Amino acid sequence: MSALHSLSLDAATLSRGYREGRFTPADVVEEAYRRIAAGGDHHAWLHLAPREEALARAAAVSARSLDDQPLFGLPYGVKDNIDVAGWPTTAGCEALQYVPQRSAAVVERLDAAGAINLGKQNMDQFATGLVGVRTVTPAARNALDARLVPGGSSSGSAVAVAAGFTTFSIGSDTGGSGRVPAAYNNIVGLKPTPGLVSTRGFLYCNRTFDVPPVFALTVRDAQAVFDAIAGPDSEDAGTVQRPAGEHRWGLASPPGLFRFALPRPDQLDFFGDDTMRRRFDAVVDLLNGLGGTPVVIDLDPFLEAGRLVFDSPLVAERWLTYGETLERHPEAVHPAVAQAIGNAKHYTASDTFRALYRLQGLQALTHRVLADVDALVLPTVGTLLTVAEVEADPALNTHMGRYTYFANPLRLPALSVPAGFRADGRPFGLSLVGAPFTDARLGALAHALQARVGGRLGATSTSFEEISA
Amino acid sequence: MSALHSLSLDAATLSRGYREGRFTPADVVEEAYRRIAAGGDHHAWLHLAPREEALARAAAVSARSLDDQPLFGLPYGVKDNIDVAGWPTTAGCEALQYVPQRSAAVVERLDAAGAINLGKQNMDQFATGLVGVRTVTPAARNALDARLVPGGSSSGSAVAVAAGFTTFSIGSDTGGSGRVPAAYNNIVGLKPTPGLVSTRGFLYCNRTFDVPPVFALTVRDAQAVFDAIAGPDSEDAGTVQRPAGEHRWGLASPPGLFRFALPRPDQLDFFGDDTMRRRFDAVVDLLNGLGGTPVVIDLDPFLEAGRLVFDSPLVAERWLTYGETLERHPEAVHPAVAQAIGNAKHYTASDTFRALYRLQGLQALTHRVLADVDALVLPTVGTLLTVAEVEADPALNTHMGRYTYFANPLRLPALSVPAGFRADGRPFGLSLVGAPFTDARLGALAHALQARVGGRLGATSTSFEEISA
Repeated sequence: MSALHSLSLDAATLSRGYREGRFTPADVVEEAYRRIAAGGDHHAWLHLAPREEALARAAAVSARSLDDQPLFGLPYGVKDNIDVAGWPTTAGCEALQYVPQRSAAVVERLDAAGAINLGKQNMDQFATGLVGVRTVTPAARNALDARLVPGGSSSGSAVAVAAGFTTFSIGSDTGGSGRVPAAYNNIVGLKPTPGLVSTRGFLYCNRTFDVPPVFALTVRDAQAVFDAIAGPDSEDAGTVQRPAGEHRWGLASPPGLFRFALPRPDQLDFFGDDTMRRRFDAVVDLLNGLGGTPVVIDLDPFLEAGRLVFDSPLVAERWLTYGETLERHPEAVHPAVAQAIGNAKHYTASDTFRALYRLQGLQALTHRVLADVDALVLPTVGTLLTVAEVEADPALNTHMGRYTYFANPLRLPALSVPAGFRADGRPFGLSLVGAPFTDARLGALAHALQARVGGRLGATSTSFEEISA
Repeated sequence: MSALHSLSLDAATLSRGYREGRFTPADVVEEAYRRIAAGGDHHAWLHLAPREEALARAAAVSARSLDDQPLFGLPYGVKDNIDVAGWPTTAGCEALQYVPQRSAAVVERLDAAGAINLGKQNMDQFATGLVGVRTVTPAARNALDARLVPGGSSSGSAVAVAAGFTTFSIGSDTGGSGRVPAAYNNIVGLKPTPGLVSTRGFLYCNRTFDVPPVFALTVRDAQAVFDAIAGPDSEDAGTVQRPAGEHRWGLASPPGLFRFALPRPDQLDFFGDDTMRRRFDAVVDLLNGLGGTPVVIDLDPFLEAGRLVFDSPLVAERWLTYGETLERHPEAVHPAVAQAIGNAKHYTASDTFRALYRLQGLQALTHRVLADVDALVLPTVGTLLTVAEVEADPALNTHMGRYTYFANPLRLPALSVPAGFRADGRPFGLSLVGAPFTDARLGALAHALQARVGGRLGATSTSFEEISA
């Protein structure tokens, strides 16, 4: 099995190897556990499945036909606010721990599709943070650069993919938790339009707009996983049918001519990070070269919607999930998390409806803006924070959400695609945001960009060109 | 003009007369004012437009082509919680009075379509009641039987149509206000699916699910008005496009075979009124005869959603509109109305989201039930109350909402169609309730039933058969 030491775990490579009989799901599981043991797990896991349990699962997958299992033998993990039957759920807080009898809908669908779950992944506590270091246990380590925060809140989910432990991970995304850590770890974070993927079995932050994102090395992989988990769930009243017309934007087709929106220059805040600004400008040039025409829009209504995630009665949805733990075990909760959620108690029913009316107005306004373009283009994060910076000033967390907070309250799909490296060698993630249900279109553009930029996948030793050959 | 004394003001009759040159819009306006002056206005109006103003409007309509005005020369009125530029809005409370500079979206569309607005109509104060006698000024009088309440909250709107003052009226419907008074006055109350008609310029009860209903003598008339006011409004973020497929159910086509849902017998509460129960059973027999197959369903999830309208944080939406008036002018508010709205202050943001989650679950559940039938069939009201009964026990109001409260929170279209008279000569209204956006289908079934039952229109001296000849 030593031949697998440098194997890329991306889905295209694994699927080809399985078909050609070069290795089995058990071999890949063994290799994943070897890597975790050899290099340290980067604190990516809060609960790693016992090796024997994962091997038993690999055997079960192998006993069924490859053709019936679109995700045959792909190792994955889920964030620790997602239920897996028989494994503890903690959301990063042991005082909250319980062991569910039933798995979340996404886990049921992934298992049915032949994927192999290796465990529960590290996170900002209560999924309330975008840095990945709002934890009371050791935080996940950035897979590329240990000085940088891993990004959050789905920190372990992104790190596990970037480090080559799993083919993909499922996180949760309320205000950017499925995109920010992707940008920090040089991988894809695909966050569907709210309602396309069931959140049954999740600990909710905002039940009305939480979304399960997919982390993967490539857009193609993320889309394949999304296809396996999307679709109405009769037990999740928030799920909807994917509109029929949208599939015309397949990955195979080049994007052709397209229009993309950019914020007014004064609304593009890089928090003083000129290295980031230069990389963003360079990637925008690449989009022009791919056939894109830029259109300048006003970002203010998007930013206003983003502020509602924490500075409004919407935070009461978090209180419904985590309030009891916070009141009974205040010592078990990270101070920054406690502060963010504790605000919820002061809001009334009238306040809530007033906020919902405003949000509805902002939805209508921004949907009209986005109807006129193929995607809104933004840096996923305006700067990259180090662990030391966040420890010195926890409030810097808010900077991370400037370009991500708004997508879910506005019911927009968004996708962070790795778009090369900055002059200082640190990763750059570009966000594409679209009108509701334009997920496939965003994927096609992101795939074209990833193919154009190429280069290293996550923190692995494999390049995009190698796996596409 | 004495030839017009017995003229039916239904749209079919007026449009034919206009085309044939037998009378003009000015003649019809004169006749409407003559009737109001001659027989008393039944307290249908809170603000009746000066006759000269209505005649000026008739002249303006006459100056434009009949072909460009689908509602050419049809007199109408609107409930007093709907803005008309230059006329006072009070919602039945003088302490709240203001004079808007701009008309509600529906009024703008009706005026553009050639209809002639005669004034603002009486209502339960703050549209918070289903009896029509929760007023601090004289209540509207039932057009058929002065002992009965007029039904509410759009009392004056229904009475004006039944009494032959106007061709149609626009009310507001949150929990049944567009259907209950229709049943009490032997007319049609057509309440569209929420979002199909703009509520811009309304004083909201529940901004998230208020709907403008149409009152008319016939289903055909109500549909024509609905067609003129339906459609997205860029200034009302709650409006949606009408789905394309739905129009196949035209009024012209007979319903053919259809399936209708009935509640379990133990869920059909007539509050001891066996006369009503017998009429309901007779009308169900008529539906069987028209090609319908009954299916028994469980009404409980519908009833649970209905209770949320008043016994939940949803009442805070009313507080946002009326709370300030209630706190500053408690003496100007009817005690029953004050009590219903005052509850709002006790609910928190967390309570609100909990209620919204439950409502979303009930929506999913009931939509699945309704997807399997063409309509749910119910009595609009389980019994008819007299003014004396309501004065003795104001809480009887709640009985009136049993079969109407749920439609809007569940986002369902509903229509009350006059279906003959009970053995005691009092009117009977049948409610048809459908899955979201099945408005046209409900209309086709209701039209078939009205044509089958026939008889007197409203409280007028004209029969359905006469105007259909």
